[in-house]
This record gives sequence, structure tokens and C-alpha cells, in this order.
Amino acid sequence: MSGRLYGVGVGPGDPELLTLKATRILKETPVVAYPTGEDGDAMALAIAGPHLSPGVIRLPLPLTFDPRASNDDAYDSAAEAIAGHLRQGRDVAVLCLGDPFLFGSFLYLFARLAGRVEIEVVPGITSLTACAALAGRPLAARGDSLVVLPATRDEDDLMRLLLVCDAAVIIKVGRHLAKVRRVLDNLALTDQAVCVERAGLDGQRVVPLAELEDDKMSYFAMILVHRRGRAWA
Amino acid sequence: MSGRLYGVGVGPGDPELLTLKATRILKETPVVAYPTGEDGDAMALAIAGPHLSPGVIRLPLPLTFDPRASNDDAYDSAAEAIAGHLRQGRDVAVLCLGDPFLFGSFLYLFARLAGRVEIEVVPGITSLTACAALAGRPLAARGDSLVVLPATRDEDDLMRLLLVCDAAVIIKVGRHLAKVRRVLDNLALTDQAVCVERAGLDGQRVVPLAELEDDKMSYFAMILVHRRGRAWA
Repeated sequence: MSGRLYGVGVGPGDPELLTLKATRILKETPVVAYPTGEDGDAMALAIAGPHLSPGVIRLPLPLTFDPRASNDDAYDSAAEAIAGHLRQGRDVAVLCLGDPFLFGSFLYLFARLAGRVEIEVVPGITSLTACAALAGRPLAARGDSLVVLPATRDEDDLMRLLLVCDAAVIIKVGRHLAKVRRVLDNLALTDQAVCVERAGLDGQRVVPLAELEDDKMSYFAMILVHRRGRAWA
Repeated sequence: MSGRLYGVGVGPGDPELLTLKATRILKETPVVAYPTGEDGDAMALAIAGPHLSPGVIRLPLPLTFDPRASNDDAYDSAAEAIAGHLRQGRDVAVLCLGDPFLFGSFLYLFARLAGRVEIEVVPGITSLTACAALAGRPLAARGDSLVVLPATRDEDDLMRLLLVCDAAVIIKVGRHLAKVRRVLDNLALTDQAVCVERAGLDGQRVVPLAELEDDKMSYFAMILVHRRGRAWA
């Protein structure tokens, strides 16, 4: 008899954006795994912490955010530790910021364990919709096409994708801000774009791209853009 | 002194996918508005019902789903009824399936009331991530571009958009299934596509597109496709 692995979306930051299903599963699950930074900081754990069962076994998963280093070994050992608990019949919940299946860190464990163990994914509020809500900017309506686009793509890719869509959410802006700005300028979309940083967290802000003076943003920053400007209002 | 309008995302159908924030706001809000079909059926109300305050004032918003008819008059009167409550200092929550700012029915009221009243949007779990979770299919990872694409677009549009993206969620499939099938066939993407219907509701199902024998699907059906097939597993 073996346990079930839950990939639990905990939303973008605001602890009130947890779902009832996530809180129920966290209460019932004897083992919880969560990514931590090198400083031990664990945002997903901070969000979910109040809902964990008192005797829960904790599996921190220390990750590096140095782009030159790999987390493959860390994910390999975490997957084996999780598989060990599952073999002994203990369910395991892996906490994941946002939604596990939309650019979630859970995907690195899913890639290692899918097909080997029973997995259930609990959807979470995505940072896309949280940022749109904070900015008061609808993402898409009626027949709109909407592209979600990592700013890590090269300039030609960004241009090609933004050309064909009605609306876009450009994620992972970070140090790619200058490139994104050039592309949006070339497409005459700068005035239709707004930057959102740290939605639901301390220091959250919403700034029209045309007024943003920074030359970089945080990794979790995103830019919302709609061809028709502020759609629907 | 005037009330605040909340656009409350109630998620795609499973009542456990409500957020803690949605349940708190519903408990505290004296007036709740929700769309109903011509038969009086109100799915958003069925999801949120258990969390409404006992004396809540209900504003049903009867909509037609006949594509030849317009709901403009219904939204106009609903907006005025809501504005009336707000002017008298009563907060109003409008229930919306999925997320209010991602193809949500709330947008029709937002278009009429934004700028005139104070509005807060409470993000909801989207049907996109709920369908992906049910199907066990990650939507996008790392540098993937993901397009959300209404099947109502014409065939050339669908082709052009699917050509440039790594992954797609084709929504509102309904009676457009044959057209979507032709486009995916032409792009050799049929084997990488899966259909998801009624995620989290009675009668939910997940079928690979290549095995689907129907010639139409429900309006709420969607097709998930990823250029690399079943990504990450």
C-alpha cells in the first residue's frame, strides 16, 4: 500500500488566496515538502504554515537561484526522499507557489515521479490573475487571444509572439526589462502595458510601463499588455 | 458613503476550489449578484451558496445563451441595480465562474461600472489550471510560450497562433470542434492534444483528441495541446 503525492498550489503570496481544498489536504497530509532559498527562506511554507497538521514531517528542498548552478541533484534527492515516504504509505504534499502546472516548481518533481507514483494536483491561484486583479486590468475577454510569455525568450521570439496576440502577460521580467521594453516600443504597445511587482506581498506595486524608471525588475515581476489598452473600461 | 463592488471568482465548479478570501468576503457582503440561465440554473450560486450570509439580498441576473440574442439590456439593468445598492452604502459581491478577469462574465459589469464605483476583484481558480490538473498535463514550463485561444476565432487565426506557440489551451470549443480538429491535424498536433470536459463536475471526462468520436463538445470544454506532447513526464 502506498501513499499519494499531492502537488498543492498555494497561490501567489496572499495567504487568503489558498483554496479550501488546499487547506483540507494540508491538514490531512503527514509529510510536507517545500522549496527554500539558500537563506532558508520558504515563501510557500510561510503561506501554508498555519494549515499544516501539528506533527507534520517537514522536507525542506534547498534550491540555488544562481543561474550558473543546477538544481538537478537537489530535485533528484528530494524525489527519492518523497518516494520513500510514499512507499511507506504516507501521503506527501509538495507546496508550490501559484499553480503547480503553470510554470510551477512542482514540475521538476513531477518530471521525476510521474508514472512511478499516484499524483494529484491541486490547482492554485496563478500570479497572472492576482496581478490582473491588483492592477484592475482584465486579461482577456470574448474572442481575445492571450499569450503567457517568459521574458527569457530572445528578442525575435518575443516580437513574433506579441505580434499575433491580442493580449499578453510577460513573466519572469527581472533582468530582461530592457529587451522587453525595446520589443513593446517597436510594436507601439508601451502605452498599453503595465508592470506589476510582488502582488499580494509587502512592497507590491503597479506602474504603467511608460512611467517605470527602473532598468530591471524582480524575477516575480510581470508586464500585462493589451492591444486595445485598458480593455473593457 | 458608498459600498464596494467585489468581483468574486468562484472557480470552475468544485466548491472546494473557492479561496479563503472569497468565502470571507461572501460571508461579509449584504448583497450578492449572480448570472442565471433561462431555466434559473445558477452554477456560480450553487458553488458559493453555503458561504453566503443568512440575510443576504439576492440579485439574479437572467442571461440568454441564444447567440442571436443580446444580453446588453440585462447587464445594463443589473449594473444600475448594483449601483443603487452601492450608493446606499451596501457592498455587493458579483459571483463569477473561474476568474473574473480571464474571460469572466463579470467583465460585462466591470465595463459598465469601472470608474464610477470602487471595485475589488478576488481572483479565482481558472478552468485552465483545473483542467490541466484533472488531465495530469502540465500547461507550460521554463521558457514555454502558452496561448489561450477561443475556438470562436476563424481558421486562419487559429493556425497562425498555434504555429508560433509552444503550448495552447483552446477554450469555448463547443460547436467549433471540427474546425479545431482540422487546424490541429494540419499542424500535426492532434496526437499531442487532449480534450477536457466539465472538470470538477458530474460527467467530467478527459479524452485524447485522437480518440474523441464526438462531432461537438460542450461550451465549457477545452483542448490542451503541447508541442512536445505530454510535457515533463
